[in-house]
Amino acid sequence: MDIPVFSDVEKAHEIIQKHAHRTPVLTSSGINKIVGGQLFFKCENLQKVGAFKFRGACNAVFSLSEEDAQKGVATHSSGNHAAALALAAKMRGVEAHIVMPDNSPEIKKKAVAGYGAKITFCQPTLEARESTLKKIIEETGATEIHPYNNFFVIAGQGTAAKELIEEKGAFDIILAPVGGGGLLSGTAISTKHLLPNCRVIAAEPAGADDAFRSFYAKKLIPSVNPKTIADGLLTSLGERNFKIIMEKVDDIFTVPEEEIVEAMRMIWERMKIIIEPSSAVPLAAILEGKIDIQNKKVGVILSGGNLDLGKLPF
Amino acid sequence: MDIPVFSDVEKAHEIIQKHAHRTPVLTSSGINKIVGGQLFFKCENLQKVGAFKFRGACNAVFSLSEEDAQKGVATHSSGNHAAALALAAKMRGVEAHIVMPDNSPEIKKKAVAGYGAKITFCQPTLEARESTLKKIIEETGATEIHPYNNFFVIAGQGTAAKELIEEKGAFDIILAPVGGGGLLSGTAISTKHLLPNCRVIAAEPAGADDAFRSFYAKKLIPSVNPKTIADGLLTSLGERNFKIIMEKVDDIFTVPEEEIVEAMRMIWERMKIIIEPSSAVPLAAILEGKIDIQNKKVGVILSGGNLDLGKLPF
Repeated sequence: MDIPVFSDVEKAHEIIQKHAHRTPVLTSSGINKIVGGQLFFKCENLQKVGAFKFRGACNAVFSLSEEDAQKGVATHSSGNHAAALALAAKMRGVEAHIVMPDNSPEIKKKAVAGYGAKITFCQPTLEARESTLKKIIEETGATEIHPYNNFFVIAGQGTAAKELIEEKGAFDIILAPVGGGGLLSGTAISTKHLLPNCRVIAAEPAGADDAFRSFYAKKLIPSVNPKTIADGLLTSLGERNFKIIMEKVDDIFTVPEEEIVEAMRMIWERMKIIIEPSSAVPLAAILEGKIDIQNKKVGVILSGGNLDLGKLPF
Repeated sequence: MDIPVFSDVEKAHEIIQKHAHRTPVLTSSGINKIVGGQLFFKCENLQKVGAFKFRGACNAVFSLSEEDAQKGVATHSSGNHAAALALAAKMRGVEAHIVMPDNSPEIKKKAVAGYGAKITFCQPTLEARESTLKKIIEETGATEIHPYNNFFVIAGQGTAAKELIEEKGAFDIILAPVGGGGLLSGTAISTKHLLPNCRVIAAEPAGADDAFRSFYAKKLIPSVNPKTIADGLLTSLGERNFKIIMEKVDDIFTVPEEEIVEAMRMIWERMKIIIEPSSAVPLAAILEGKIDIQNKKVGVILSGGNLDLGKLPF
């Protein structure tokens, strides 16, 4: 199993900085006062396609050989990764094949189509998604770009923490949400290389706590019927991600739904930025008192800002 | 009448950069594609207290002599200026007296009180506000800091455009909304000094078009019963502001309410930042086709991000 190291993150950074936003790092003295620590938010909600996912997808697409790239890329996803892969492929001028469940929200179908991807709809089951994807790959020779269990994707996601640390120096703790583990594993690779004494802590919705359970059981336990408003965190950990997390992540905490909504609203109101529920999970863990950040300098990676403005939870 | 020049903006910048955020400049390739120009948004919604108003208030408070500062500052305002002045005074360790109409929204009362200001409530008429403020100033010796018709406030507001130009270089056009004219006059001073060939254009809600009418009549015409969702732009132009605008602003356009809401939603959805309706007025003028920005490089000052999340217009 090929696992990226920090030099792979550096290579990724050289590739993607031509295409991705260098997102701002924002602070809020109001939130700092409430939580008692000094928080620095890395705003991947302000990244292209509105999520950190563009970093990994971009690195994966631009790392392909010219020959492979010409055959296109493919994935099954109804979320941010689909849009990210579609845009990255468009930027390289190659085809993106996206398998989406036919019950995906219209807004997501439109976003992916808007980037010029070829969408194939299928039944909304994991089996249908995988068999449809397999067929497309057999027909086209496209390279599958998994949303998180992928060497180049993980290296790409690690560039967010790299930028954060380069810009703001040492941290006591860096926090990220965990779903499939792409962002968390990339964050851990960069952080533990650049700041060996900095703790890397993940936060996860209690209703989708497979990473928490896997971490403490020391074996991969997939999600069964996960349920959370943080829809970016419903997926189960990938194998590569789990291996990196077991080696480099210091702890994982879970948080209840109400706290996610409260943290999300706090960031909207105090920082004037739009984040999706998944982004609010680390702050929720702080507000719950699960992570001691008193007088500490803490980096928080805000993963994305894509949600339906007509269906806010407040 | 004392009118600031660019060297006053430079002095203001030296003062406020110790206290204010240097706000990010964001771009959206999606919006650029829609409008056909290259837009750079200066995000004063991400400024302290959520609005550019902090720049001017901060400059005014920190420009006072020690003797005057000790007597405090005062204003009547129910909006962003009240919160900005309260925070600036708190930072200098002096008292802020804020006169607010007793029907002000609870959320605004709380925000101003949260910064430690002394609030005096009065009847919701301009007369009551002015007479109450006069009485407080007589009793305390506090210095009145007008929200826009003030030398130091105008110079402070000019620092936003100064930062934008310093960071992104030359522009063809710089756009700002206009209400009392503090932001617009400050923007015009900085822009015309740094980029004499750049056009400075203002946008105003059609339902509160006193600046538009004054500009073309070449005399100050106050608002009568202005009505717009862009509640930061209800006020009439100040005298100093009008003088600067007549000298340095190239044009003013008005926009209907629907277009303001559409532009606001576009920025929320595409840029993942929260702006108040007033901030959306320049983009609304572009979407209306009133300003030709084809293939031009355009700076847009987003004025603020304070609004009730429970009462969105979409």
